[in-house]
Amino acid sequence: MADMRLTKPDDASIKSFITGAAGEFMQAAGHSAGNGARNGALGETIAARLLELAAITDEPGHLTRLYLSPAHRKAADLVAAWMREAGMTAQIDALGNVVGRYDARNPGARTLLLGSHIDTVRNAGRFDGALGVVTAVEAVKAASKSAKRFAFAIEVVAFGDEEGVRFASTLGGAKALAGKFAASALDETDDGGVSRRQALMAFGCDPSQLRELTASAERTLGYVEVHIEQGPVLEQENLPVGIVTAIAGVTRATVEIDGVAGHAGTVPMPLRKDALMAAAEMLLAVEAAARSRPGLVATVGKLEVPASATNTIPGRVCFTLDIRSASDRERIDAVAAIRQSHDAIARRRGVSARVLIGHEVPAAVCDRRLSDQLAAAIESFGIAPRRLPSGAGHDAMAFDKVIPFAMLFVRCRGGTSHNPDEYASPADIDIAAGVLLNFLERIESQ
Amino acid sequence: MADMRLTKPDDASIKSFITGAAGEFMQAAGHSAGNGARNGALGETIAARLLELAAITDEPGHLTRLYLSPAHRKAADLVAAWMREAGMTAQIDALGNVVGRYDARNPGARTLLLGSHIDTVRNAGRFDGALGVVTAVEAVKAASKSAKRFAFAIEVVAFGDEEGVRFASTLGGAKALAGKFAASALDETDDGGVSRRQALMAFGCDPSQLRELTASAERTLGYVEVHIEQGPVLEQENLPVGIVTAIAGVTRATVEIDGVAGHAGTVPMPLRKDALMAAAEMLLAVEAAARSRPGLVATVGKLEVPASATNTIPGRVCFTLDIRSASDRERIDAVAAIRQSHDAIARRRGVSARVLIGHEVPAAVCDRRLSDQLAAAIESFGIAPRRLPSGAGHDAMAFDKVIPFAMLFVRCRGGTSHNPDEYASPADIDIAAGVLLNFLERIESQ
Repeated sequence: MADMRLTKPDDASIKSFITGAAGEFMQAAGHSAGNGARNGALGETIAARLLELAAITDEPGHLTRLYLSPAHRKAADLVAAWMREAGMTAQIDALGNVVGRYDARNPGARTLLLGSHIDTVRNAGRFDGALGVVTAVEAVKAASKSAKRFAFAIEVVAFGDEEGVRFASTLGGAKALAGKFAASALDETDDGGVSRRQALMAFGCDPSQLRELTASAERTLGYVEVHIEQGPVLEQENLPVGIVTAIAGVTRATVEIDGVAGHAGTVPMPLRKDALMAAAEMLLAVEAAARSRPGLVATVGKLEVPASATNTIPGRVCFTLDIRSASDRERIDAVAAIRQSHDAIARRRGVSARVLIGHEVPAAVCDRRLSDQLAAAIESFGIAPRRLPSGAGHDAMAFDKVIPFAMLFVRCRGGTSHNPDEYASPADIDIAAGVLLNFLERIESQ
Repeated sequence: MADMRLTKPDDASIKSFITGAAGEFMQAAGHSAGNGARNGALGETIAARLLELAAITDEPGHLTRLYLSPAHRKAADLVAAWMREAGMTAQIDALGNVVGRYDARNPGARTLLLGSHIDTVRNAGRFDGALGVVTAVEAVKAASKSAKRFAFAIEVVAFGDEEGVRFASTLGGAKALAGKFAASALDETDDGGVSRRQALMAFGCDPSQLRELTASAERTLGYVEVHIEQGPVLEQENLPVGIVTAIAGVTRATVEIDGVAGHAGTVPMPLRKDALMAAAEMLLAVEAAARSRPGLVATVGKLEVPASATNTIPGRVCFTLDIRSASDRERIDAVAAIRQSHDAIARRRGVSARVLIGHEVPAAVCDRRLSDQLAAAIESFGIAPRRLPSGAGHDAMAFDKVIPFAMLFVRCRGGTSHNPDEYASPADIDIAAGVLLNFLERIESQ
């Protein structure tokens, strides 16, 4: 879509990169020009390719690329072409993952997985997911152009099912690699009644080949994902990149409060059992429980007053809770504290309150060794290695307790994501690509 | 509607009342049998007639009687018949008010207005409005049966437009008597596109006769209305009746809060500008402002989080304010205090908040002299004369600053109103009717 291309790819810079001199890998990885000194070409290239990818959409006028859609098909083909250009073999697997392989120096070596996703939310930004895929492909290309082979094979995976917009379950592609994909998910249907199985077959995939995907722990070194932060921490601290400590665990709950409805004019304040005022006090208790636990976040995203009227004291209120922490212990502790405060508030106000737990997902902790190597790579560019949790879910979490995984976060403007305003600068992306290459070097040398 | 008649009117008790001995007026007014000793017949009669009236509905299955509807027509005819039976002349005026007149001893005497309304909300209770009309008719009937005439004429008015369900403006019938009816209201249309003028003509009224209604202050003693409390105060204090000090003034406003939306997982608590958490704090400030001012009530009836999602920090919240007090000064002071606290909360949280005043109606203060006579009448039954404001609006407020008015509240179960569960006991109604008769005696003797 032409109007998505805010700036044209800088063909000259792309060309100069592709045809660059031998030793480009070393330069890109921060070795030749000294710590922190980079020419930014890799970042510009990646930014240009993200623009090109963002033009592939299911909905003209903005970026929407749903799993197994026509736009997903075109994007997968483009990414496969980029992989081949980068010196990889490329194929689309049984679940629609695009997998590019860059062989190791020696056959039989273990494999390092790099990747992220190329599906999007509706009216998306162009960095969420795609950044990690394109950065990995360009990192391999830099190695390939320098005829650099590693002691491990690299597989770059472009997952297609991270956002979970089309079908009920999510992370199907990454779960399959991790041996966690439930075959029952093939029968899930989208809003149009099309099953995942049917959509896969129309995409040209053979869902019966599913079991062949499983990445065994023995032959896989780990999984590393570059992703925009989708939050404001790095921007606040003026850092281009950071290392993810864990993908936060989450508790989702609904709180229902029943008080007594009444006429706004006729019930004196001391006689009220106002469900909304009780809710207000409970919300502030939720906030206080989160504020007193650094690293934990708690959000009331929805609050409804059914059958409300300006002149009626609310008799019933429902609200949602979303509580996240990299520490499961801290999260469970906070949920208990919130329950306790809600009970006390309800008792004092003469209303009833029920906290109904929806789902609970434990935190997925990043691998210490891989993360330390990312930190060392960041420090080699003269940048403080900030470690922070990821409050959002990512493909990486599918690998929890199966293979080691780590994530590199890239600063994004205003912390904005899932929005056309989503933005990461070419300069920051360039540093992320450099860190990834430096990281590959470090793993290589171990 | 047969199924509305939970109990059949006790024909025997009605008959015995109607055919009762001379002196019945004195007995009913609490004179013959001593303070507080009543046989309850008047209350039973009124309760029975309220059941009969409640059977007249526009919507089978529950009580809904809108202004100028077929059910209103039938109810008006029934009330007019009851008025005639009670010794009054009765007619339906240009706005559909049913007006029954009981002449004074001498022609040219001033007139005391008694009344309330016979329209209802949808799915209403049977006491709101109708109680005041039927009680006034039965009080006159008690006088008439004893051949009692007063030094003043009595006009009992059954207004038809108190609830404001059908047309935009309300209290049209009472405003017309007070000389406050705006002719433009005749052009208001209902949901079906029928104008008030058309509806009046279909009802058999002649809207052009409007100006003849005006009750001049010189020839009118005042207006007295019996009404259920619609609140829990009398029940809490174990009192059957109370005297209204004023019909509360009201300020209606909308508060709009703009914060910054964000991902529930990725924005640390200290970096949030959560519109809903700001709203929660503002709600509690509203509550505190009301609690610290006895007699003032403040209600947040509606609160909305547009485009909300469980995993999104709310960026925008709107809520309503409804603030009432019998003291305009106290209400204006509370609104200022609430604005101030909202500003401080918004500033501290980095959100913006606007308080948009919708409408403001000053308090309508009841006449001291008429209220004192009601109090004396209550005391004559050995009951403490509790004075309390009315948080709800009533026909009486239309007479503010035109003629003196007073109101007698009757205890209702649980403070419930605008609901089929609305209930006032025959015993309490009997006391209210006795107080009204005693009050007429007191006015008479002055």
